[in-house]
Amino acid sequence: MINDKLPKIWYGGDYNPEQWDAQTWAEDDRMFKLAGIDVATVNVFSWALIQPDETTYDFAWLDETIDRLYRNGVYVCLATGTGAHPAWMARKYPEVTRVDYQGRKRKFGGRHNSNPNSPVYRRFAKALAGKLAERYKDHPAVLIWHISNEYGGYDYSEQSEAAFRTWLQARYGTLDALNKAWNTRFWGHTFYDWEEIVLPNALSEEWDGNRTNFQGISLDFRRFMSDSLLECYRIEYDEIKKHTPHLPITTNLMGLYPELDYFKWAPYLDIISWDNYPSLDTPVSLTAMTHDLMRGLRQGQPFMLMEQTPSQQNWQPVNTLKRPGVMRLWSYQAVARGADTVMFFQLRRSIGACEKYHGAVIEHVGHEHTRVFRECAELGVELGRLGDSLLDARSGARVAILFDWENRWALDLSSGPTVHLKYVDEVHKYYDALFKQHIPVDMIGVEDDLGAYDIVIAPVLYMVKPGFAQRAEAFTAAGGTFVTTFFSGIVNESDIVTVGGYPGELRKLLGIWAEEIDALFPDTTNAIVVKDAGQGRLSGSYECRILCDLIHAESAQVVAEYGRDFYAGMPSVTVNRFGEGEAWYVATSPEASFLEDLLGQLCEDKGILPLVSAPAGVESTVRVKGEDRFLFLLNHNPEPAVVKFDVNGTELLTGADAPGRVEVPARGVMIIAGKG
Amino acid sequence: MINDKLPKIWYGGDYNPEQWDAQTWAEDDRMFKLAGIDVATVNVFSWALIQPDETTYDFAWLDETIDRLYRNGVYVCLATGTGAHPAWMARKYPEVTRVDYQGRKRKFGGRHNSNPNSPVYRRFAKALAGKLAERYKDHPAVLIWHISNEYGGYDYSEQSEAAFRTWLQARYGTLDALNKAWNTRFWGHTFYDWEEIVLPNALSEEWDGNRTNFQGISLDFRRFMSDSLLECYRIEYDEIKKHTPHLPITTNLMGLYPELDYFKWAPYLDIISWDNYPSLDTPVSLTAMTHDLMRGLRQGQPFMLMEQTPSQQNWQPVNTLKRPGVMRLWSYQAVARGADTVMFFQLRRSIGACEKYHGAVIEHVGHEHTRVFRECAELGVELGRLGDSLLDARSGARVAILFDWENRWALDLSSGPTVHLKYVDEVHKYYDALFKQHIPVDMIGVEDDLGAYDIVIAPVLYMVKPGFAQRAEAFTAAGGTFVTTFFSGIVNESDIVTVGGYPGELRKLLGIWAEEIDALFPDTTNAIVVKDAGQGRLSGSYECRILCDLIHAESAQVVAEYGRDFYAGMPSVTVNRFGEGEAWYVATSPEASFLEDLLGQLCEDKGILPLVSAPAGVESTVRVKGEDRFLFLLNHNPEPAVVKFDVNGTELLTGADAPGRVEVPARGVMIIAGKG
Amino acid sequence: MINDKLPKIWYGGDYNPEQWDAQTWAEDDRMFKLAGIDVATVNVFSWALIQPDETTYDFAWLDETIDRLYRNGVYVCLATGTGAHPAWMARKYPEVTRVDYQGRKRKFGGRHNSNPNSPVYRRFAKALAGKLAERYKDHPAVLIWHISNEYGGYDYSEQSEAAFRTWLQARYGTLDALNKAWNTRFWGHTFYDWEEIVLPNALSEEWDGNRTNFQGISLDFRRFMSDSLLECYRIEYDEIKKHTPHLPITTNLMGLYPELDYFKWAPYLDIISWDNYPSLDTPVSLTAMTHDLMRGLRQGQPFMLMEQTPSQQNWQPVNTLKRPGVMRLWSYQAVARGADTVMFFQLRRSIGACEKYHGAVIEHVGHEHTRVFRECAELGVELGRLGDSLLDARSGARVAILFDWENRWALDLSSGPTVHLKYVDEVHKYYDALFKQHIPVDMIGVEDDLGAYDIVIAPVLYMVKPGFAQRAEAFTAAGGTFVTTFFSGIVNESDIVTVGGYPGELRKLLGIWAEEIDALFPDTTNAIVVKDAGQGRLSGSYECRILCDLIHAESAQVVAEYGRDFYAGMPSVTVNRFGEGEAWYVATSPEASFLEDLLGQLCEDKGILPLVSAPAGVESTVRVKGEDRFLFLLNHNPEPAVVKFDVNGTELLTGADAPGRVEVPARGVMIIAGKG
Repeated sequence: MINDKLPKIWYGGDYNPEQWDAQTWAEDDRMFKLAGIDVATVNVFSWALIQPDETTYDFAWLDETIDRLYRNGVYVCLATGTGAHPAWMARKYPEVTRVDYQGRKRKFGGRHNSNPNSPVYRRFAKALAGKLAERYKDHPAVLIWHISNEYGGYDYSEQSEAAFRTWLQARYGTLDALNKAWNTRFWGHTFYDWEEIVLPNALSEEWDGNRTNFQGISLDFRRFMSDSLLECYRIEYDEIKKHTPHLPITTNLMGLYPELDYFKWAPYLDIISWDNYPSLDTPVSLTAMTHDLMRGLRQGQPFMLMEQTPSQQNWQPVNTLKRPGVMRLWSYQAVARGADTVMFFQLRRSIGACEKYHGAVIEHVGHEHTRVFRECAELGVELGRLGDSLLDARSGARVAILFDWENRWALDLSSGPTVHLKYVDEVHKYYDALFKQHIPVDMIGVEDDLGAYDIVIAPVLYMVKPGFAQRAEAFTAAGGTFVTTFFSGIVNESDIVTVGGYPGELRKLLGIWAEEIDALFPDTTNAIVVKDAGQGRLSGSYECRILCDLIHAESAQVVAEYGRDFYAGMPSVTVNRFGEGEAWYVATSPEASFLEDLLGQLCEDKGILPLVSAPAGVESTVRVKGEDRFLFLLNHNPEPAVVKFDVNGTELLTGADAPGRVEVPARGVMIIAGKG
Repeated sequence: MINDKLPKIWYGGDYNPEQWDAQTWAEDDRMFKLAGIDVATVNVFSWALIQPDETTYDFAWLDETIDRLYRNGVYVCLATGTGAHPAWMARKYPEVTRVDYQGRKRKFGGRHNSNPNSPVYRRFAKALAGKLAERYKDHPAVLIWHISNEYGGYDYSEQSEAAFRTWLQARYGTLDALNKAWNTRFWGHTFYDWEEIVLPNALSEEWDGNRTNFQGISLDFRRFMSDSLLECYRIEYDEIKKHTPHLPITTNLMGLYPELDYFKWAPYLDIISWDNYPSLDTPVSLTAMTHDLMRGLRQGQPFMLMEQTPSQQNWQPVNTLKRPGVMRLWSYQAVARGADTVMFFQLRRSIGACEKYHGAVIEHVGHEHTRVFRECAELGVELGRLGDSLLDARSGARVAILFDWENRWALDLSSGPTVHLKYVDEVHKYYDALFKQHIPVDMIGVEDDLGAYDIVIAPVLYMVKPGFAQRAEAFTAAGGTFVTTFFSGIVNESDIVTVGGYPGELRKLLGIWAEEIDALFPDTTNAIVVKDAGQGRLSGSYECRILCDLIHAESAQVVAEYGRDFYAGMPSVTVNRFGEGEAWYVATSPEASFLEDLLGQLCEDKGILPLVSAPAGVESTVRVKGEDRFLFLLNHNPEPAVVKFDVNGTELLTGADAPGRVEVPARGVMIIAGKG
Repeated sequence: MINDKLPKIWYGGDYNPEQWDAQTWAEDDRMFKLAGIDVATVNVFSWALIQPDETTYDFAWLDETIDRLYRNGVYVCLATGTGAHPAWMARKYPEVTRVDYQGRKRKFGGRHNSNPNSPVYRRFAKALAGKLAERYKDHPAVLIWHISNEYGGYDYSEQSEAAFRTWLQARYGTLDALNKAWNTRFWGHTFYDWEEIVLPNALSEEWDGNRTNFQGISLDFRRFMSDSLLECYRIEYDEIKKHTPHLPITTNLMGLYPELDYFKWAPYLDIISWDNYPSLDTPVSLTAMTHDLMRGLRQGQPFMLMEQTPSQQNWQPVNTLKRPGVMRLWSYQAVARGADTVMFFQLRRSIGACEKYHGAVIEHVGHEHTRVFRECAELGVELGRLGDSLLDARSGARVAILFDWENRWALDLSSGPTVHLKYVDEVHKYYDALFKQHIPVDMIGVEDDLGAYDIVIAPVLYMVKPGFAQRAEAFTAAGGTFVTTFFSGIVNESDIVTVGGYPGELRKLLGIWAEEIDALFPDTTNAIVVKDAGQGRLSGSYECRILCDLIHAESAQVVAEYGRDFYAGMPSVTVNRFGEGEAWYVATSPEASFLEDLLGQLCEDKGILPLVSAPAGVESTVRVKGEDRFLFLLNHNPEPAVVKFDVNGTELLTGADAPGRVEVPARGVMIIAGKG
């Protein structure tokens, strides 16, 4: 439980009373009660208000806010407010603003705007966090700390350049080691002095944001920047812990945000929290995957849904309204996948600046007689009824999919063989095939224990880090099913190719050699032709695209071949018996139906069965808590759906019996509580 | 009359003899006579020639040019030449060049290139204008002054930053007022010192030119920059007026140019002049609307067509030739809508640099035996025959459409609900529906008197300025018909939302509440379904798109409902009886036929009838001068068109009788002169 | 012969042993032998390795490499390594890095990164070239020098700005002459001091890379930059020649690379060499044209194919594999068109940085059992068998097409009449029509002798340089056939229009006057309608697009007219009898079939007959060496093709008889050796 002061699914969100007057605060108090809101995130962007100059701190407004909320039954998620520095600081200490990718020194403006390697910024941020912690450490309203906000963005200042050199010295020790790791003899880049190293951006090695001359440099820069921002977080974290060792601390992550390696951040967050803003065309299974990934950052520990919009966003090209019922449905999707909070950005809509057309529980009209408020209030009541029943429940997945930010960076930075390969899309293809078949999945990192699973899938594992190949072999040898794909096993953690034949360190496990890699034009396909009369569910021919590895089976058995082009007849899918298990290689990017057939078969072979039988558009998950098993049924369709499952239980929201077959309303939710 | 020295429609254009030799000048003199040219705009880009260094002025060439023209019967529109500073000035005083949106200090180059807040630039420009005025104040050739050229572009220099702070102090008085107007408590932007404020550009609050974190800052910056350039204009204006209080002064505007608020400029121009360069795919009614807007800047006063091309442009991606007859047709379109001059850029084609492929009266071949010259000469003769008959005639429109640059800026800068809403397009939709039905329209500003009209249309009046709502109420109460649309009444002049329910200050007048605003994908539509058996011409169902306000009728009557989606059945069009008049709300962006039906009906209700009956592609206008009424018929079709109207008159160009029915030739023009 | 030490088609390529260890070198030696490799290009990017600081030079590694290669029968193409400066140099002397188009000072990074006008860079580069030449001047392995690498890119530093002023002083002598050449009275640009002139880039006169306010300035800047880089080349060239006057020197060009005027470079290269990287959708005839252009740079002298990929590239969006046989086919295409070498980038694939997914003879797997290696080795054997038979053989073309980089620049920089006109595409259209009909072509410069040809084609000869018109007249008067097109004869070498009627200096020769130039939208066409019953092969109607000159025949005969629009019936194709010859004008951009018919007829009229009769997709060329005539047949189709020709000969690769009819295998090559 995040904090046992509030033993239920927290309900609330970002709240900025500093933008309003006392009369409005009174309305807030009244309407929060109507909506069942019990937590408010405050002080996210109030640094300038609390600290009007270098030496003055004024907490009066915050004191009053927290006291008022608490008096009205609302707890506080207390932000440190360091996500945007004050204007006076930028003027007095220009070093706190960033230098951008183009090498341009920025002026005051925006948010998430601080140079993470500015000593001045770090000093002021640390001081503010300390003062806040000291002041509110005993306030009964405070449930949790929220450091800064949505960390992100890279900086190219001279402070960061100096820090990068220090970071590199720590990583490599000697220039010889660095020159080797970056292969600097290419294009005459040998460095003879640490001071010769400059940050990779549009003025040096990169262009268009992810094109680079030196993958090794650019990769290390991303690691360094992720670490730099993490250091900023940790400085505040450590300062707060001095005062409130008992309170959890988090910062709100952003799901699939590319720039930070959240697996490296997760150990320093007491609980993961994240902001869920599906784009207009986001597949529902991609949102599901992202929830699972956030849950996976800390090995399945429940997380916080820190932000979502009650109705519409403002920063999409086209900001459609969430249709009636969708806000509730997506809130339960989060809970179904591990969230123990449902929180919004924002509780009241601001009236000026760029987020005023972002939805809120309390809209500009100001009263409760809106569709949006009604839906929020109904959900508030419902979550209240659930009490602590779901808190701390865990996923029981037996299938894991690997996700690795560094691998993603390396693929994004690769020059060749194709710009059309997108790591997240490939991962999502595998996820989606399981999602549609109602097979629970854990999203895990490459350092995580594989032994907890029956099947481990590593799509496009281009970068193989030290020790991984051995761990994958051990997992397979012990009976596990390992699945990987084309363009895997190619490089080490410095993006240096493992010579001697692709897939490098994975070659023994997979029993194949990939001789060449062909790239296909976007409008071109090849075919995966299954050999013989079929292999379980696999049969006939499937389309494939993007890349085709031209492989030779060594110890592996050929399951399917290519159907066209000069490599027709070469293997496209292989399986290698390895100890007690088997290792699959899918040498190209297949159409969805292939993955449904392949993964469905592999699960069946392991006795992993679908949670339910349901029409398309229905999502299912399980959360397990001791003896209790909660089966979530989420119907994303605009019409009712009949869902069948193999346990008898009780529908948690209504208390109705659920004897293995229910009709879930259009855009409705059911939670079947059962045992075991 | 602009200047009674030349009591006819002026005919001529930009002339750059400084690029040529004496032999060519003689040819110019000869050919200008052939073409009936009687006015030449000179000295537009001759600063460097007149002032070769900081202290030397040499007018010999200009003396000779003006004398020569005058000797040959050509008057002069005398430019001050400050549209491009000399290279020596940029070298000696780098402050005169601009800093661009990216924060880059520019070097010498281009034109319209001066930092408007550079004291050095202002000093030199003022001195030049003064010296010119003093020298030519008594020259009989000079008809009018032409200050600088096509003012535009924004500057981000430190001089402009300092001036912006001063401008803000004047506007807001205190930082408290400014902080409130900009809602700076959002994202911790509170300013404690004026010096903390920086210009909004790619280094601070903006990106991509019109995306911003703070609409209030960006809006004020646009006001400030428009004012800064206006100050430059006014410095020269005041200097010239000292010497020639009797001569009119103008500067050439650019129609729908987005960066300047021409309604704020207009009071300082003695006559509006503008440059008409329809793009390749510009609808003819958009050009018409722009003429009407230019006429509206000074409450219907006739204006100057300062520039158009005789044949082709050079800066479009594809520069097609104007087809035979089109130059004449479009010239008369200007006259039909209020122009008392027909002028070209340019009289003779330059031979080097970027405008050499822009058409001219005298082409590169140099003689008169070209199609382009022949068409120009024929028009010159024809305009000569018209004498002063049309000068000073006015429009007699009873319908007005509001146009507001600040509203346009605010919509462009808005983050959400959609990027697909384009203010000019929405205004043009309403204009076009009237244009097609031959209903004259005045384009007016939000400060203009509404009482002069029967119908006032305010498309997407997102920003409602102080006092406007009261004036709209008074107009309607007195019997007027007021029409506005979705996403209106949302914010005040600082882009701060009016709370308490959209459409804010217009809610009482319109009798509705807009609860939510749905944005539609570009390929999606909803339907406007007219209630009951129809409302006058309105009946059945129409498509709509972009945005759909979800409104509730309060005092208003529901005319039509939405046909689809979860808000099917909610009102899409309403009318509110208000005093003696009525206020219409069109809650979405409808297809053209809806607007034709709605506006046609509203006009009919007011007894406003079409000027003519004619096939599509025929344009009609009226100009009225005392007892005289001139009905212009412009046939944009490549075939003849029969046009019927209800007066008998005389065709002005031919002297033929025009008894209520004429056949206008393909791409032809008729002007029916009648009484009343 | 390039160097008689190796009297055969050289076979090898770029080799970077500095990235590897001794064990790998041994493998290289072994595999080079297997592949028949006899030349390696070394030291291309080793500056940082050879010169670790300002005063130290260490050639040990290079000594060892060259000795080892020579011991193993591999000669050396010795690069000077100045294509990328060391990091220490950029740190100590920041002036060696460039300033980019945006005016941004670059930091260390990339390659081809040196400021060509940096005295420091020039001093260090000269010193290195001198030391290398001195050290290796007597080494028996060295066949040729390779200066720097793929010169290119522009610089906007203050050093280049100063050098530009000096260059302009040399070109123009006086500011008066410069002001006139640039037409600076346009937009008030008169320069009174050389120091006022700044480089044209995004901070001054240009935007988007090829849009400019002043074509004259931008054109001279391109000339200057091409010259600046050429100076860098020549500094090294002169230094090397002091030591090895007997050894040839080259630098690798890049075919149609736009930024350098290779015709101005060619006199300073002892032999042309170039890097052939067809893009994924490059037509095979465009590659052919580029080979012919490279051969034409030095009047038909054989050239070196310095680089091509054995399998795939890395920097295309999608990098497909070369299909089996294609590497051999394209290698022979180079030889067929004048190459006396077949060389690869690269001999062994690097394992780190941005070219690791670029193909190589030795792939990452490291052994010889790959498709790519096998194909390379087979070709190596085959080339060995050819011996010196083909060396120094020349083309026997009777048709020439003019190609001029300065004309290309001027067209690219033109503002109007259309952005859709692409010089290379227009040239290629004419080339392709001859290519398909098996008519050999020489690509020549505008300074080259026209008298060697029967037919000279000058597509879109927009810029006519001094003396060219007279030479074209003399050529035609003497019986030649001259062909040119729309938008020709417009400007002089400063992009100043020749007044008095287009096509200016070519008007007398062509016997026409172009009154206007219409630009067509991309989706619009007009028609070329042949008069009467046809003109030889020309008959009926053909589509045309992009631009249509509206011409009047003066002395010329009208061959075809326009079919549509207001200029229907005006001439679209004319021919002017001129002395003993004729001058054709094609007034628009025609469809391919028109050019096939027109050029086919003109060749037939001159007795120039197709080399062969063959199905589409077959390419043919001839190389002639004394009495020997080699007919190359290249089948680009994936199926065999029957080819007929009118000589009996012997197939050179197989020794088989080839009696006027052969079947060329799919993607196969035949070389028919005959006499005469």
